[in-house]
Amino acid sequence: MRSARKVLVVCALVAMAALAGADEGMWMLHQVRDLETRLRAMGCQLSADELWNPASGVGLASATPWLGGCSSSFVSPDGLIVTNHHCAFSAIQINSSPEHDYITNGFLARTRAEELPARTSQVMVFVGYEEVTSEVRNAITSGMSAVERAAAVERRERELVAACEKDGLTCRVAAMFSGRQFFLFKQLEIRDVRLVYAPPRGIGEFGGETDNWMWPRHTGDFSFLRAYVGPDGKPAPYSPDNVPFKPDRFLKIASEPLKEGDFTMIIGYPGMTYRYRLASEIASDLTFSYPNRIQTLRDWIGILEERSATSKDVEIKLASVVKGLSNGLKKTEGMLRGLTQSGLVAAKKAEEEKLAAWIAADPERQRRWGQALPDLERALAARRASRERDLLVGSLARASSTLGAAITLTYWCDNKAKPDLEREDGFQARDERSIRMRLSTMQRNLEIPTEKAVLTYFLRRIQALPAGQRVAALDRELAATGKTGDEAIGIFLTRLFSDTQLTDQTARLGALDLDAAALAARKDPMLDLARELVTELRAAKVEDQRLQGENLVAGAQYMEALAAFRQVPLYADANSTIRFTYATVKGYYPRDGVYFKPFTTLAGVIAKHTGEEPFNCPPKLLLAYEKVGSGSSGDAAPGTLPVNFLSTNDITGGNSGSPIMNGKGELVGLAFDGNWESMTSDYEFDPALTRTINVDARYMLWVMEHVDGAHNLLKEMGVPVGRQ
Amino acid sequence: MRSARKVLVVCALVAMAALAGADEGMWMLHQVRDLETRLRAMGCQLSADELWNPASGVGLASATPWLGGCSSSFVSPDGLIVTNHHCAFSAIQINSSPEHDYITNGFLARTRAEELPARTSQVMVFVGYEEVTSEVRNAITSGMSAVERAAAVERRERELVAACEKDGLTCRVAAMFSGRQFFLFKQLEIRDVRLVYAPPRGIGEFGGETDNWMWPRHTGDFSFLRAYVGPDGKPAPYSPDNVPFKPDRFLKIASEPLKEGDFTMIIGYPGMTYRYRLASEIASDLTFSYPNRIQTLRDWIGILEERSATSKDVEIKLASVVKGLSNGLKKTEGMLRGLTQSGLVAAKKAEEEKLAAWIAADPERQRRWGQALPDLERALAARRASRERDLLVGSLARASSTLGAAITLTYWCDNKAKPDLEREDGFQARDERSIRMRLSTMQRNLEIPTEKAVLTYFLRRIQALPAGQRVAALDRELAATGKTGDEAIGIFLTRLFSDTQLTDQTARLGALDLDAAALAARKDPMLDLARELVTELRAAKVEDQRLQGENLVAGAQYMEALAAFRQVPLYADANSTIRFTYATVKGYYPRDGVYFKPFTTLAGVIAKHTGEEPFNCPPKLLLAYEKVGSGSSGDAAPGTLPVNFLSTNDITGGNSGSPIMNGKGELVGLAFDGNWESMTSDYEFDPALTRTINVDARYMLWVMEHVDGAHNLLKEMGVPVGRQ
Repeated sequence: MRSARKVLVVCALVAMAALAGADEGMWMLHQVRDLETRLRAMGCQLSADELWNPASGVGLASATPWLGGCSSSFVSPDGLIVTNHHCAFSAIQINSSPEHDYITNGFLARTRAEELPARTSQVMVFVGYEEVTSEVRNAITSGMSAVERAAAVERRERELVAACEKDGLTCRVAAMFSGRQFFLFKQLEIRDVRLVYAPPRGIGEFGGETDNWMWPRHTGDFSFLRAYVGPDGKPAPYSPDNVPFKPDRFLKIASEPLKEGDFTMIIGYPGMTYRYRLASEIASDLTFSYPNRIQTLRDWIGILEERSATSKDVEIKLASVVKGLSNGLKKTEGMLRGLTQSGLVAAKKAEEEKLAAWIAADPERQRRWGQALPDLERALAARRASRERDLLVGSLARASSTLGAAITLTYWCDNKAKPDLEREDGFQARDERSIRMRLSTMQRNLEIPTEKAVLTYFLRRIQALPAGQRVAALDRELAATGKTGDEAIGIFLTRLFSDTQLTDQTARLGALDLDAAALAARKDPMLDLARELVTELRAAKVEDQRLQGENLVAGAQYMEALAAFRQVPLYADANSTIRFTYATVKGYYPRDGVYFKPFTTLAGVIAKHTGEEPFNCPPKLLLAYEKVGSGSSGDAAPGTLPVNFLSTNDITGGNSGSPIMNGKGELVGLAFDGNWESMTSDYEFDPALTRTINVDARYMLWVMEHVDGAHNLLKEMGVPVGRQ
Repeated sequence: MRSARKVLVVCALVAMAALAGADEGMWMLHQVRDLETRLRAMGCQLSADELWNPASGVGLASATPWLGGCSSSFVSPDGLIVTNHHCAFSAIQINSSPEHDYITNGFLARTRAEELPARTSQVMVFVGYEEVTSEVRNAITSGMSAVERAAAVERRERELVAACEKDGLTCRVAAMFSGRQFFLFKQLEIRDVRLVYAPPRGIGEFGGETDNWMWPRHTGDFSFLRAYVGPDGKPAPYSPDNVPFKPDRFLKIASEPLKEGDFTMIIGYPGMTYRYRLASEIASDLTFSYPNRIQTLRDWIGILEERSATSKDVEIKLASVVKGLSNGLKKTEGMLRGLTQSGLVAAKKAEEEKLAAWIAADPERQRRWGQALPDLERALAARRASRERDLLVGSLARASSTLGAAITLTYWCDNKAKPDLEREDGFQARDERSIRMRLSTMQRNLEIPTEKAVLTYFLRRIQALPAGQRVAALDRELAATGKTGDEAIGIFLTRLFSDTQLTDQTARLGALDLDAAALAARKDPMLDLARELVTELRAAKVEDQRLQGENLVAGAQYMEALAAFRQVPLYADANSTIRFTYATVKGYYPRDGVYFKPFTTLAGVIAKHTGEEPFNCPPKLLLAYEKVGSGSSGDAAPGTLPVNFLSTNDITGGNSGSPIMNGKGELVGLAFDGNWESMTSDYEFDPALTRTINVDARYMLWVMEHVDGAHNLLKEMGVPVGRQ
């Protein structure tokens, strides 16, 4: 009797342990229906329909817009948006100057009139999606080459998008599982976004690069924007007459304190994962892509830092780029380290071999999927041949925004005469507005000496490529200087920038209206170089299409075989489409002897404060910490206020700014990072180590009330001041 | 009813929490009787008498000898001693050579004949102690000056020691509470100590300086020595005819696995603490002593590392000194950081003010203790006046072992003609053997270019002292070169070393037999310099005595007042006398969001292994880790083997190598370090943060059985092979 009871208890414990655990998967919203039992058991009180009801088109997902590479959520009926400080950073930066240093000091609009145009920011409100697999795949006919297949699919996708956008929506077709499935996503694009509130950098970026990816963390990584629409309620360009957007849904702040073990869920827009990547590709990442990228980023950041040291003005201009590159560097280093240690290549190899054996063991399986893996491997190997050149040439448009503008103009003027559906990707009529904005706003951060320095670096590397990967256009240009090596590059770049008109904003925008012939007739050396580079880029694009065409057959077959082999529901790799992930609040054991608790506290912020960047709390925070303990709000111990917390949610870049919600769908915080020990989570989800780092809503509210006095926003969000 | 029960439960929990907590105090053995109730409640199964029975003179303490600055324990009836690897390091190093690199590879004597003379090591077996307060303080008569008081006490101590040593024992009088109490300690000095077994450096020093003071830790910091005595059982110099010493008690290896929350106790010889130091002195440590020492140690280590890089031979010669200095540097840095953050000065100041007010509030208290604090402050301030010069001059003997030898010879030859009781400290007849040994063994590590380099450094600093702190002798010597600055130092040092005979071992030992006049007649420049320096050192000694004399009155009164004020039993500051500390196995929270578990495991060793120093496991350990899991010993998961553990014991330097025992007095490990977060524990014990780091006996046994095959020792210790 006693031992039987013991067994029961053990079973119950095992079951509870499993339920309390982490759950892998970035699920599409329609897949949530299949997860409902498990979600309920974990503490979710909402149904799949309440997250998103395909019939009505409305649900919690209506409150979670995409925000240009980040995620966000509406938190008031008047279009107030909360996201990460680092997601609003470009909006803060573009409004900052040495006189108004909103980066350092933060910004608060006390009235709507004080809200500042965010300019570079755009908001895409989720409207819904539908599966269009057969519509897209029907475009493929037998006998097509790989490149033709890719082109046919691309064209069909555009047709679907064009039809969809007739209703005033912004649409996109996204492929899942290498094109085994296609979905048409519908969004409402809001163009008038304004900066409402950002805490000082000493809160929003506390810990800086030192703490980036790290736990324990103490960053108040939050900021507020607002979506505006025309007086008719429809999206419109910025205008003082615009009115706040009224979202279908907005999130309420959690009514109960979040604690360890609680259920959490995230809706957001994860950017890219490689969960189904083959062993051979991962091996190439390990031995080539990551080491190469690390070297490039280190060198690039080094150049920008040297330039930033020359003046405050240059520093502000380059701040956003340095931040982005540094973040990328730290992530890449962690990925390389993690992948090297993980043994993932061997594990993948082993699964691929088992899968191949399982396919080979049955004639029907062999007929359907026997060619998938070998074909895929062949296509991938072929694409790797010119990987270094493609990377370097592909970087040039980022190395110099002037050269980037020239490349954009070349593509644009080449394409504009063509019917919309036949244009190259990114250069359709719908893209004109964002191109125009980019060519305009880049003026603000234009820093030509920096562009020259970075270009010098890349040109040197391109010139060092082996015979098979030469860039003929550059060889010619540099030879024309009559010199070699750095001397040639120096002469070439001096001419390039002294003779171009494209460093002038009016000239750039004017060029947009020229046709291809008129653009060529300008004899602008920057445009001449761009034309040569576009030829190179187009050749690389054809190779991409070839691989994509192979993927549409072999890749889709491989995913089909894998699903049949694994016999569990699969979630698609992240691709910036809306996803749902559910989890619990949970710490972890980063290494032998150490446990990381799931919450950090305000006392930890104070303990980290050194008075020097990146651990430099604003004086008003220190003051609030001292005052609030014995002050009016009645908090006995402000040191115990939760600041950041960990959850087992499965996220990646693009999820930054995502709302993290409790079982009632109330906002408990914002996801803003992954942890260092799970840097390889884009490749594999490890329940023991993979964690999402979130800023706790309670810290956000405390800073708003006691540090920055953002009482207007608290009131708008329905949060009684004095509560937290 | 229900709430009454709740209260009871809460009370029980509070009581348990208090009992499970840490206990401050390095207690003298006779004080243990007063702790018995608490010890029993915490899990101690031994009585105070079993630890040490003053009547029989025997107890667990008989098994825990002092080991030249470290602690140790007997673990077999045949005098087998276990201590830390770093405590046996000089014994390992002195037996090592490029051909027999026992430092790197470890050493195991498979038979007693293979055991190697440790030479520099000596063992002091605890025999007992008695209080001699009245005997000592009776030497003080009214009207004595402070210096006279100190001298009278010193002389009385010597008389007591001389009387005690007539029985063949080694004795020492130690002052407690600034001379409020005195105790006469009796020890049996064993001179023939041999190296039995040391694991490879990659185990014994795993983590090196990187992990020093750190948790989580994975160091196998253990080694074995053996005590030998003459065939008559009496202490004797090294001889092949000697036989193993038979201790009255030896420790058995724990029979049950140690776990979190278990009771632990340590008997050992803590070197020095400052728990009763005044605020003004701590402030001086903060602003002068520690910053100064840090700079000195960094510079000194830098010089030695530069020299070590020149050859393997030099590296081996300097290894032990570099290790010692590095350890001191890391500790000093941690102390400075900790003291700066702790606010201890303010807390002390506050207590001193309260104490002063409490004394002033009562005429009788005022009469007894009213002058204590002001007198003490005055004496301390006076002693600080020449602190920098005293530090630098005091360092010269360590900077150059040749100059150190000359200073020793000068003192020795000055003193030898005097009656033993009138000689200066450290130069009595009883000290001759150890002086002779030092002058002899120093030859092995003599490295003259290094001595010159280090002396150059110190001479430069002495020459930079301000007017009030000049060292006249050095001023003269350097002026005599006819040059200034570095040139003068260079010329001076070249002459010093080229004209001295003291770099020759025979010359040094021969000089010991000369009288003061004959020594002076040698005209050896090293001896001439030493004579000048000894004059300086003696002047500083008089100042020390003056302070000591003040302390004998004011200091003792202060301690008396403090005891009355605090109304709890006080333990004396550590002073290398035998002490007892009791505690529990317990982790801690080093900073916000992080918990350090109390045990580390073998898996953690493997995870830290990089193949490069200081994380370079010997291949045979890696092999054992792979093999043992599925091998003969039947261990299912060798990764879970405990390696190091934390306890709340109150220890300090000198406790290294101490046995840590369970409630039955069985050996569960060896104390070997304190943790970084409690570097200021010499000043204050913080139950939340102060931890002892111990090597777990189970790891030691596993390494002995599976890595180094020390089956002979396991058998001798009564450990069945294949058990662990």
